[in-house]
Amino acid sequence: MPIAAPDKKTAPAAGQQAATGEPVARVAVAGATGYAGQELVRLLARHPAVRLTAAMSSGATSAPRPLPALARIWDQAVTPLDIDQLSSSADIVFLALPETASAEVAPRLLERGTRVIDLSGAFRIREAADRQRWYPATATLPQGTVYGLPERLVSCPGCYPTAALLALEPLSDAALIEGTVIVDAKSGISGAGKAPSDRTHFSENHGSVAAYGVFSHRHNAEIEQELKREVTFVPHLVPLDRGILETIYVSLKKGTTEAQVAKALEDAYRDAAFVRLTGAALPEIKHVAHTNFCDIGWKVDEERHRLALIVVLDNLVKGAAGQAVQNLNIILGLDERTGLL
Amino acid sequence: MPIAAPDKKTAPAAGQQAATGEPVARVAVAGATGYAGQELVRLLARHPAVRLTAAMSSGATSAPRPLPALARIWDQAVTPLDIDQLSSSADIVFLALPETASAEVAPRLLERGTRVIDLSGAFRIREAADRQRWYPATATLPQGTVYGLPERLVSCPGCYPTAALLALEPLSDAALIEGTVIVDAKSGISGAGKAPSDRTHFSENHGSVAAYGVFSHRHNAEIEQELKREVTFVPHLVPLDRGILETIYVSLKKGTTEAQVAKALEDAYRDAAFVRLTGAALPEIKHVAHTNFCDIGWKVDEERHRLALIVVLDNLVKGAAGQAVQNLNIILGLDERTGLL
Amino acid sequence: MPIAAPDKKTAPAAGQQAATGEPVARVAVAGATGYAGQELVRLLARHPAVRLTAAMSSGATSAPRPLPALARIWDQAVTPLDIDQLSSSADIVFLALPETASAEVAPRLLERGTRVIDLSGAFRIREAADRQRWYPATATLPQGTVYGLPERLVSCPGCYPTAALLALEPLSDAALIEGTVIVDAKSGISGAGKAPSDRTHFSENHGSVAAYGVFSHRHNAEIEQELKREVTFVPHLVPLDRGILETIYVSLKKGTTEAQVAKALEDAYRDAAFVRLTGAALPEIKHVAHTNFCDIGWKVDEERHRLALIVVLDNLVKGAAGQAVQNLNIILGLDERTGLL
Amino acid sequence: MPIAAPDKKTAPAAGQQAATGEPVARVAVAGATGYAGQELVRLLARHPAVRLTAAMSSGATSAPRPLPALARIWDQAVTPLDIDQLSSSADIVFLALPETASAEVAPRLLERGTRVIDLSGAFRIREAADRQRWYPATATLPQGTVYGLPERLVSCPGCYPTAALLALEPLSDAALIEGTVIVDAKSGISGAGKAPSDRTHFSENHGSVAAYGVFSHRHNAEIEQELKREVTFVPHLVPLDRGILETIYVSLKKGTTEAQVAKALEDAYRDAAFVRLTGAALPEIKHVAHTNFCDIGWKVDEERHRLALIVVLDNLVKGAAGQAVQNLNIILGLDERTGLL
Repeated sequence: MPIAAPDKKTAPAAGQQAATGEPVARVAVAGATGYAGQELVRLLARHPAVRLTAAMSSGATSAPRPLPALARIWDQAVTPLDIDQLSSSADIVFLALPETASAEVAPRLLERGTRVIDLSGAFRIREAADRQRWYPATATLPQGTVYGLPERLVSCPGCYPTAALLALEPLSDAALIEGTVIVDAKSGISGAGKAPSDRTHFSENHGSVAAYGVFSHRHNAEIEQELKREVTFVPHLVPLDRGILETIYVSLKKGTTEAQVAKALEDAYRDAAFVRLTGAALPEIKHVAHTNFCDIGWKVDEERHRLALIVVLDNLVKGAAGQAVQNLNIILGLDERTGLL
Repeated sequence: MPIAAPDKKTAPAAGQQAATGEPVARVAVAGATGYAGQELVRLLARHPAVRLTAAMSSGATSAPRPLPALARIWDQAVTPLDIDQLSSSADIVFLALPETASAEVAPRLLERGTRVIDLSGAFRIREAADRQRWYPATATLPQGTVYGLPERLVSCPGCYPTAALLALEPLSDAALIEGTVIVDAKSGISGAGKAPSDRTHFSENHGSVAAYGVFSHRHNAEIEQELKREVTFVPHLVPLDRGILETIYVSLKKGTTEAQVAKALEDAYRDAAFVRLTGAALPEIKHVAHTNFCDIGWKVDEERHRLALIVVLDNLVKGAAGQAVQNLNIILGLDERTGLL
Repeated sequence: MPIAAPDKKTAPAAGQQAATGEPVARVAVAGATGYAGQELVRLLARHPAVRLTAAMSSGATSAPRPLPALARIWDQAVTPLDIDQLSSSADIVFLALPETASAEVAPRLLERGTRVIDLSGAFRIREAADRQRWYPATATLPQGTVYGLPERLVSCPGCYPTAALLALEPLSDAALIEGTVIVDAKSGISGAGKAPSDRTHFSENHGSVAAYGVFSHRHNAEIEQELKREVTFVPHLVPLDRGILETIYVSLKKGTTEAQVAKALEDAYRDAAFVRLTGAALPEIKHVAHTNFCDIGWKVDEERHRLALIVVLDNLVKGAAGQAVQNLNIILGLDERTGLL
Repeated sequence: MPIAAPDKKTAPAAGQQAATGEPVARVAVAGATGYAGQELVRLLARHPAVRLTAAMSSGATSAPRPLPALARIWDQAVTPLDIDQLSSSADIVFLALPETASAEVAPRLLERGTRVIDLSGAFRIREAADRQRWYPATATLPQGTVYGLPERLVSCPGCYPTAALLALEPLSDAALIEGTVIVDAKSGISGAGKAPSDRTHFSENHGSVAAYGVFSHRHNAEIEQELKREVTFVPHLVPLDRGILETIYVSLKKGTTEAQVAKALEDAYRDAAFVRLTGAALPEIKHVAHTNFCDIGWKVDEERHRLALIVVLDNLVKGAAGQAVQNLNIILGLDERTGLL
């Protein structure tokens, strides 16, 4: 399994509670001024079991700057990216960088013996040929990227694949799916990143909806890699800040009942800390904004043997920073909810 | 054809230009305080070929009230609904009423010899059994509801079907479609009407997206009736005021080329006044907001013989008031763009 | 001091940390389906030192219903309002009710020996004549409403006055203000409550801004009562969900320096847990959304001896639920940040 | 009067109606890809009395590009800025450029005998010293910038001053105002321009409000220049696309009655085409969005002799493109509403 998606496990990490007072690990964040990076700083600064030692920007030359929304939570400035300092000050480094930067920075940290939790797409695609197509900056996967604990490099799944796979994998495992799956995703604009552009301008998005990356989005490859099935994925930008809702259209094998669908999902997530099943009461983005929850609802039409799944999560938390911290907790043997509720 | 969807015709009404000065017809609006109703008043008050004689609310007892946004455009108060007065003051009455009210009011106007352009769903479904299921208030279709000009009652298509059918009918006519079509619709909140409810509360929608009516929306029946093909339709509310974007997933017959798709659409809309084809430059809601345009873009994946169509329109204009005025123009033999540019 | 505004104290409550495990008090919420009520449930369900025993709606007959966004945090249903049950199950009850309901419910709880933290305006105005004008439902103030700890009834300040007074009281105490103060407030729509109405309809607010209550808002009286100075207060609804920004225009006494303004504010809030001073780096609503912080920035024009203060807070947290919990912490002798970071 | 603000005149231009068919003038737009520029293209392409001959971008090297939202309205590409071509193809050129570009381009067009309607701030400030401070790019005012018709260069007022001055000038002329006026302005993000930046990023504005330019905004100088009175002006960005609402706080001379305030405004705008007075029914941005109207409402508190004015307009129409077209109409001797309703 190339990407560390914590909720995929059927048995949750039992976890040892953090010993009071003593931090279990020193951590640092690179890319702390981006949206996912700021969310990481927020979570890690309050995490009871680790000590946040540095928050760096994504560039080596940017001037130090404070994070006004995090005053009193993290009062230190965000400093320029410095790999030696990252390596010496932290046992585990979170990379919330563009994937080209991650592709360059991660190996250098690993060389220095520092473990890495990477939020970018740089290391998500296993097959060299596919990776060459979608993430050409990642020439080779660093040794030890065999994932699974306690490996050295954790590559977190993308925000869209997280939602899609949490909903689809149990149904795929239960062999209920037939034919192509369609994933229609609606994402808040923070998913497009913090860099100013026409695409992220307020006036281009307010009062509008736009599709993009039709048949050509890299997350399509990632979902297909994990699901081992043809998937049509179309993402859209909708005028809100954070959150993703995916509507997933599945053709069920003939004779599949609503009860079978429900059972497959319930079996998968009976003990999951952050997946909430809502059944026919369909979830909405506002139910999960600013949380690490992923909510999954569904409707089955037995007559036409079709299924619609509605999946929601906060792209900056469960889709990025929260999931990364969940992975940290698993690496450290902590209860995976530590610092996330 | 039960619903009068003007752009479906391949040859546009040539149209006689309105004789300067002399109005061709007297018109009135019932339901003028709703969102589509206000849009009708705005369009008709400025329409060069008709005279707007009355704007009434949807209730017989509501107090007269002005429309502040329409000051200087329509300065008269909206008065209580009065069928006799409607009938005596107008040759053609627009009904922007809930469908149960339309089901009751339309026959009474027809009895009095007044023609009706109805924006509700009351008269859209032909088969009595289907109508009983989706619009039980409409016991029988009034005589003369055979649509097509110059009939007495024009039933305008719903906002969602307008977008879906404008994109799909040419492809269906060209026999390029295989299997079930999936229509994933994103609508602004004005589509949910002006009545205050939990569903239309600002805070329930801001920062959120919600699916509704999964496998059970009446527009699903309307699209299937017209397309004569199985359709899976899922509408969503997105946090904007006006506009619809539909992402339509089509399995193409094997061997279908991109050129064939483009030709089918171009042939259908070469002379259409209000359908703009954008090809691979995908349209966005902001391109059509506050206009009567419907923009259609698409991407074809020949290898996997799949097609994604992106269709956008303003639900209050092209999806309601503008389309109704376009029908008026056709009834009156005017250029169908009159008063709509 | 009629209203319990925790940050007004110059020395923060030192607080005893909650003993691990043992809850210090049982608490309950009435009005738990409203926006402030839900926020209270969220905060209290996770509060380490109290046990939330009941969440009730604002009506005695409403059916029990879950709070989907709070699944896994508070999984019990919201039950109908029942005063006896409230009183028997909780030592302290939070009322997040309309003020007419609070005016009726609070005395009945006090009779039964239950302490009350009231978030409504019912008990904010001291002078009977003024109260008669602004809150006629509150015939008399219950005995023991002398506020200040350890009284029986805590009346929390309104969201607008909280922001205005946190900024203005230190300057007033330092005698720097001259003449009338102008408070121009911009509030998210959740401030208008959860009841559906024309005023809270999405489409009425999206893309718009509206002033209301000009010269006639009850919070004007509350601010003047506390500040003992003429205030012109105009609130506006802006198209966002949660958060208030107030722009406060002050004429400074001639000769007042920027340093004096800064010193007055810094002296007041040096040790405050939840007031952050940002000086000339003006705060924005997004810095405080979903937190209990109130951020205050300012610009002084010494030449024209004028001052503009920019104050932001989250109306549902610092302006309502968070402030109420802060008061709870003070009542219970806890660190006032308990459960709020 | 340095800036051509059409509604300031008490008697509206009677206007000759455009002779059918024959355009009265050839016009062109420089800066056509910006928000105000696009609005100009939309208005001028449909204007019945002029012919739009060119739409150019603000740079000489940018590649030609279409305007997708204006397909069927203006189907030509926006071409690179070319002053010779502008001058030869148009009698009157609209400049919707950054003010530094306007400062350079306008004189070169005037040299070539082409008339200019400038939407930037470059030529708004009369006093050289003030202009040096606020618009240093405008070394000298071109000869003939004496404004008033039929001069060569029309400098349109800024969006904020337009709203403020329409409300305040009649009261100032009637000598009802005492002391400093406070203008608290809330603007949609399109007012910050189309250039992508942190300030215009969607996620920085969604769910937020921010003040900026406190005591240092150039429009403060412009308002004071016209009003000849001390003004405190603070603009804010609110999360909507287009529209401005200004709340204006005025101390009235003692004894001023509500009737006097109303009379001053009514006398000023009895015959104004685009100013609508709403009295105590306060206007909201949605009433004027996408129109050339400016709505003014007010509340008077005679006891405390204070006045609050609420003024709304669409910053891209009445605050920019619409006002510029209104000036064009006046220059050409047309009814000033031509092409604007």
